[in-house]
Formats: sequence, C-alpha cells, structure tokens
Amino acid sequence: MSLDTAALPDRLVRQLRFVRELDKLKGVLRRTSLIDRSRRENSAEHSWHLGVMALAFGEYAPPGTDVAHAVELLLVHDVVEIDADDTFAFDVAGNASKLDRETKAAERIFGLLPENLECEFRARWDEFEASVTKEARFANALDRFQALVSNDSAGDGGTWRAHGVSREAVLRRMAPIETGAPGLWPAALDAIARATAAGHLKE
Amino acid sequence: MSLDTAALPDRLVRQLRFVRELDKLKGVLRRTSLIDRSRRENSAEHSWHLGVMALAFGEYAPPGTDVAHAVELLLVHDVVEIDADDTFAFDVAGNASKLDRETKAAERIFGLLPENLECEFRARWDEFEASVTKEARFANALDRFQALVSNDSAGDGGTWRAHGVSREAVLRRMAPIETGAPGLWPAALDAIARATAAGHLKE
Repeated sequence: MSLDTAALPDRLVRQLRFVRELDKLKGVLRRTSLIDRSRRENSAEHSWHLGVMALAFGEYAPPGTDVAHAVELLLVHDVVEIDADDTFAFDVAGNASKLDRETKAAERIFGLLPENLECEFRARWDEFEASVTKEARFANALDRFQALVSNDSAGDGGTWRAHGVSREAVLRRMAPIETGAPGLWPAALDAIARATAAGHLKE
Repeated sequence: MSLDTAALPDRLVRQLRFVRELDKLKGVLRRTSLIDRSRRENSAEHSWHLGVMALAFGEYAPPGTDVAHAVELLLVHDVVEIDADDTFAFDVAGNASKLDRETKAAERIFGLLPENLECEFRARWDEFEASVTKEARFANALDRFQALVSNDSAGDGGTWRAHGVSREAVLRRMAPIETGAPGLWPAALDAIARATAAGHLKE
C-alpha cells in the first residue's frame, strides 16, 4: 500500500489511497476544545462524536428520520476539511469563501475513489450541505448541538466567551436544531439562557 | 447541562450526561500513530476512520452484510476504553484481563443512558465482541485492517517494528480479515509480505 503494488486490483488501490487520505482529518483542528479543555478538538473525532450522538438522540429527530442514514452523512460531512480546513462558525469572511473551497476539496478527495463510490460519497456530502432531507437536517442540528454541548460543559463559556460571541449570534447559529432535532431545542435554549446569565454570551 | 437543570426531562439529562462522557474517548491513546507519525492515534478518531472505511470497503464484506449496521458497531466498539483504556494487541497480560475490565466499563458507561438505550448500546458492543454475525465479523476485520494500513503507510514498519512483532503474530492478529472482509485479505497479505521483506516484521 505504501507502494500501491501492481499485485492489487486498481480499484482496491484507489480505495486504499482514499482511506489513507482520510487520516489527515485527524490533524484538522476546530475552534472548539475538548470538554476537559486539554486541547482543541479535531474534525475526525468530532465526526465520531456526532455519529454516536445520532444513535443516542435519534428519538428527537422528526418522525420518519432514517437515523442510520444520518450517521453516514455525519461521518462524511467534514472530510472536505482535509483541503479546505475548518471554518469557524462566526468567521464572516471565512464563511463567504467556504463553499468554493469545500467544493474543490470534494472533487479532489472523493475523486480518489472509483467512480461509483465517488458518486456515493459526494452525494452524502451534497445532501448534508443542502440540508433539505430530514436526515440532513437532523445531522446539521447535531453538528450545531455538539458545539453547544462543548461550550456549555466546562462552566467557562468555551469559544463563545473566548471570541466574544453574542446571544443573538448563537441563537441564529443554533436555529437548525429547532426543526432538525426539535426534542433537543429546549436543551439548547436552556444552555443559551444559562450562558447569558453567567455573562459568557454578550446580550 | 453543566447544571443538569430541573427544567429538562430526566431522560434527556441522562442522554446528555452520556454524550458528555463520550468526549473522554478522545483522550484514550492507542499504540498506533497517525500515518504522518506526528502523534499517537486516539480511540475516537480511530472509530471514525473505521466507520468511513466500512462505507468505502462495503463491497469486500461477505454478501448480505448490512454495512450501516456494521458502522453502528464500529462507532460504539471502543467506548468502553474510557474506563478500561486501550489494550495493545500484542500485550498478553493486558489481554488476559481485558474482558473483565471492559465489561465493568460497559456497565457503567452504557448505564448512564435510559434503559432502552442502554440495552441498544450494550447489544452493539456485545455483538462486536462476540464476532459471530456478518456485521460484527466485518467490523472486526476493519479494526484489524486499519492498524495494518497505519503500520504499512509510512515505510517505517510502525508499531510492528517498534515492538519487535513477528510475521506469525501479525498473521494471527489479521486472520479475522480473511473471513470478515475476504476481499481485503490480498491487501493484508501484500502488506505483511512487504513488511517482512523490509525487515519490519521478524521472520
């Protein structure tokens, strides 16, 4: 594999190349820290956390949501960051160029795969980004909610306080939870209310 | 959530506690390093890698394998390491006490959840450990294969060379790939043959 040997079928060699490439997502750092605040979280472990959260919170998705499919979207949704890097939720300039950077990344990285798999992986990423299907909306809701859990869980306001974020900006950022995972919305509002009361979010 | 507020239903508070607890898996280090050898891999990002590998390598599982279910087993299979820590594959003493340590961990960690979810998560872990169903055998095969990919991909023999592991020990360790993901077995044999020829595995 380090030598893509001629002994292996080309199709398998391409899949192995993609699987090796994935390793790089473990080096992409998000703004969010681990709950123990020992270091910043990377996008690979973040994606794992979201996958398990989908299994634990499936009952809070709208009726008829295919949780297993949402898990697949979550596992794939950040792979483009290998090239495009993580964009902080509250970075206006970064978010303006995000789609262009991530689309180029999707072409290169999913393009490592044989064509049918490239289509499958690209379709998962496109579905997550479009956020139209129930599964994509649930997945997007969890992506927002996980950052909220991290910011809420150490009593220090996390990146919200560190970056001087306002209550209104967080409410806008978290809005997809209300429709994508309605049963988690009270927990989100509760965390935002407490963070505001504690002075961790600007009024 | 940092204050498990009385405003939230007890069921949701328990789920939130479990989801926060999961964060600790990001601090459990495996012996294996990232492919760029910058640091050791943690069990959370490892579990993510396995989930995406299942999506990319599903065609190599035995016919009739439910890949989405295998993904669920992979996302949950290492959660017990939050308490039991990772046990190196070639550590004989550690592996003798592994089941007992991990069973206690499963009781505590999955026990944080409401009862029906505790049963679901425990069943996933039990299924992975028993390695009887097609999905569990495929999941176990990928778990072995991912370590092989890491050891093979940097040209340095990885943990195999660092710990003086023999070709025979690796062949035994990788054997579940032959039945759990038969289509990947040639790639495993190829990597082992090259590592032996390079002197990274003892004959």
